[in-house]
Amino acid sequence: MEQRTIAKWETFTKWFSGSDREDAYQSVEFTAEFTCRNRRMWVRGFYDGEGRYGLRMMPDSEGTWRYETTSNAPELNGQTGTFECGPAAAHGPVVVEKTGRLARLAYADGADYSCVGTTCYCWTHQGEEMENQTLETLKNGPFNKIRMCIFPKHYLYNANDPAHFPFPGGKTEGGYQWDFSKFDPEYWRHLEKRIGQLGEMGIEADLILFHPYDRWGFADMPRETDLAYLRYAVARLAGFRNVWWSFANEYDLMRNKTMLDWDDNFRLVAEEDPAGHLRSIHNCNGFYDYGKPWVTHCSIQSSDIEKTPRWLEEYEKPVVIDECCYEGNIPDSWGNIPAQEMVNRMWTGFALGGYVGHGETYLSPDQVLWWSKGGVLHGQASQRIQFLRKIMESMPQHPAFAREYPWRVDGLDYGQRKFLYYFGVRQPGEKHYQLPEGAKYRAEIFDAWNMTVEDAGVYTGTADIALPTRPYCGVILTRVE
Amino acid sequence: MEQRTIAKWETFTKWFSGSDREDAYQSVEFTAEFTCRNRRMWVRGFYDGEGRYGLRMMPDSEGTWRYETTSNAPELNGQTGTFECGPAAAHGPVVVEKTGRLARLAYADGADYSCVGTTCYCWTHQGEEMENQTLETLKNGPFNKIRMCIFPKHYLYNANDPAHFPFPGGKTEGGYQWDFSKFDPEYWRHLEKRIGQLGEMGIEADLILFHPYDRWGFADMPRETDLAYLRYAVARLAGFRNVWWSFANEYDLMRNKTMLDWDDNFRLVAEEDPAGHLRSIHNCNGFYDYGKPWVTHCSIQSSDIEKTPRWLEEYEKPVVIDECCYEGNIPDSWGNIPAQEMVNRMWTGFALGGYVGHGETYLSPDQVLWWSKGGVLHGQASQRIQFLRKIMESMPQHPAFAREYPWRVDGLDYGQRKFLYYFGVRQPGEKHYQLPEGAKYRAEIFDAWNMTVEDAGVYTGTADIALPTRPYCGVILTRVE
Repeated sequence: MEQRTIAKWETFTKWFSGSDREDAYQSVEFTAEFTCRNRRMWVRGFYDGEGRYGLRMMPDSEGTWRYETTSNAPELNGQTGTFECGPAAAHGPVVVEKTGRLARLAYADGADYSCVGTTCYCWTHQGEEMENQTLETLKNGPFNKIRMCIFPKHYLYNANDPAHFPFPGGKTEGGYQWDFSKFDPEYWRHLEKRIGQLGEMGIEADLILFHPYDRWGFADMPRETDLAYLRYAVARLAGFRNVWWSFANEYDLMRNKTMLDWDDNFRLVAEEDPAGHLRSIHNCNGFYDYGKPWVTHCSIQSSDIEKTPRWLEEYEKPVVIDECCYEGNIPDSWGNIPAQEMVNRMWTGFALGGYVGHGETYLSPDQVLWWSKGGVLHGQASQRIQFLRKIMESMPQHPAFAREYPWRVDGLDYGQRKFLYYFGVRQPGEKHYQLPEGAKYRAEIFDAWNMTVEDAGVYTGTADIALPTRPYCGVILTRVE
Repeated sequence: MEQRTIAKWETFTKWFSGSDREDAYQSVEFTAEFTCRNRRMWVRGFYDGEGRYGLRMMPDSEGTWRYETTSNAPELNGQTGTFECGPAAAHGPVVVEKTGRLARLAYADGADYSCVGTTCYCWTHQGEEMENQTLETLKNGPFNKIRMCIFPKHYLYNANDPAHFPFPGGKTEGGYQWDFSKFDPEYWRHLEKRIGQLGEMGIEADLILFHPYDRWGFADMPRETDLAYLRYAVARLAGFRNVWWSFANEYDLMRNKTMLDWDDNFRLVAEEDPAGHLRSIHNCNGFYDYGKPWVTHCSIQSSDIEKTPRWLEEYEKPVVIDECCYEGNIPDSWGNIPAQEMVNRMWTGFALGGYVGHGETYLSPDQVLWWSKGGVLHGQASQRIQFLRKIMESMPQHPAFAREYPWRVDGLDYGQRKFLYYFGVRQPGEKHYQLPEGAKYRAEIFDAWNMTVEDAGVYTGTADIALPTRPYCGVILTRVE
């Protein structure tokens, strides 16, 4: 009897040998039940080609786990085994933490997760050299989440085919031809490797399951292929701690999928995924209804960052504004804001209770734009985002809204231990804050662009704070007595 | 028989002697009909105190005008006279020009009126010295409209009483006491003098008839006093070419007036005012319905300048965004945007078919903020607004929307003679415009902040224009062949 030790929230994978019949992807049913004391998980296995079958899961309880397989293939049926799950070596997956205050993201172990994302839609389709360069950039950068597509993307500044595709097939004289009855394990192994590498760096992989920017036919697959694809993706990928499910980039531009299709996709993944990874969907124009129970958080495209409090109140779920325009200088209005404005939007969203994501789209002679292909960053936002993240992580958890007037949210109130206000492009020369009675607060003035924090003295009662009449500043009040 | 010559659109005033009875303001009815060939105008006269009665009007046709009075006071009844109206000496009042394209403002003689407004709510209540300083600032500044209150205003940075009030009365031990059955002509003569001085400088007086910021009781007068006040204001002021009627600043904060009251106020003034001066009303939160027939244009408080095309399409009336936040550094969020953002919002509104107004609110040891009291300007927007106005006035009239994509307005199309695009904080490094077939266009790149215009060459077909990757820039394309 086999005995292995897996850290809590790490990936357990077990391989089995079975039939290599031509129709194995479709005809071989292979699942398992994992149990650890009173914890039970139902896990779908997956075919990896060449008679190889995998079971993959992420144990979420310490102790001895036992599994037992079920299959219509006799050699895969009734297989059992155990492994030991030891103490966590990392924070675990990101989950939604509801506290009665604002809905927030946090790690499963309760630690703060100050979400600072970026977007590189197709970075895993660019070949070893550039993909390694992207990993190196990420390693030295401020980001702890990346939005990335499973399918390749056909759009401006992105015309290349990846080396492999999710399905066997490829370019023929009559266009691209695919065998949707199978998958190409090579493609999926490559994706898993990249997800694993992101995980080692503490970066969440916000996996985009569908998108409209397509020349291969993946945006218009038969409905049963969509469902088989989702099951296969979950079976292979849900065992990775750092996976998030993003059902689409710009779902509302995919004209061939109905709202019921999206609902069913969410429900299918929610049922198939024993780890319960985060689930959301990204819009172009109108939002999918984030209030639906299978949506864990908002994934928003909008430049109206100031609506963050309204969205938090409407959905009572964490608000992640994944796309608010990108730092860059391309002609398109979604990709040419200055670094100042990129950083400003990220700060604004944070100071209003949300999380705003980064992207970079600078014109480049080699047509390599970070937002699509990865590579290196050319802009000026990155180090400021590091400063933002440092401040985010220095704040207590569980903020509520802070208001100067009842009708508007102005900042965050961390249980009166700290208050944070950010003024954006506004440049007040002074502010007046009514402090909680009987408490002393130290005021610090920060400059989000110049990355400075200055002590502004200790106050009781009304804090009349002189400010520098400069954009991108804010105030942090910390209770000292 | 008297014979005087008045230039078209100048003010004709004629004084009459009559009863100085105590209740003259209320009991003496005094009106006149003015005729010039087939043009007829009904004009209400006004009592000016001490037995003096005025008739004031603005002739809008050249030729001989004849008037005949009607009154319940015999000495004022059946008085007749004539005057000659000669050629216009100035452009005339501002009117709404509908051309089948965007609704625009223009002078009555058809000349362009590129509206560039500012706000000095209480500048006429500050005494001779500061009022003259304000006039001097206006004379040297870029503005051709000013928003100003008839009533004094009680608010932040504005606590002083004016020297006179619209009604006789004043401060008593029990608070302010007014005789609403009379007016104080001194107050109105002072206001008329200031309106006249603005007119000489080519500045429109956008007169705010009501507002909620009050400690005197003028925001809560009896309904019949509101109506008498409106009639008196129109009788005295409608003869000035440069008057606009703004029914309120932040009408929706005046809790004691119903929507029907506002409707009736509009209708009353529309009936009483023979000159048909512009009429609108300014909001705090929700808009008054600018679609109502007695509203001539939108007077909007909003920082969502990018909605200008939507408002133009919804109301088919000129869009004046009178308040989009002010340049300054006070604590309040409506008064602390940097000069860059003030100028940027004015440019954005212009480039989307509207007109955006300026205001200035810099903290000042003497509590004199331009937006309230006038005085001098301390900011950096003014000279850039002069540059903006110069460009506005250099464009042809009657623009339509220009769109890069069907779903968004990107700029203005002047009958294909010129196109104007402005990028705001965006910083495209290049843009590609599909030019009308068979035509050549010269491209000029302007920088709204640095006030430069650079020749960028002549194009046909697709204009691929390299841009400086810098905020506050735009492109003007001018047909040269």
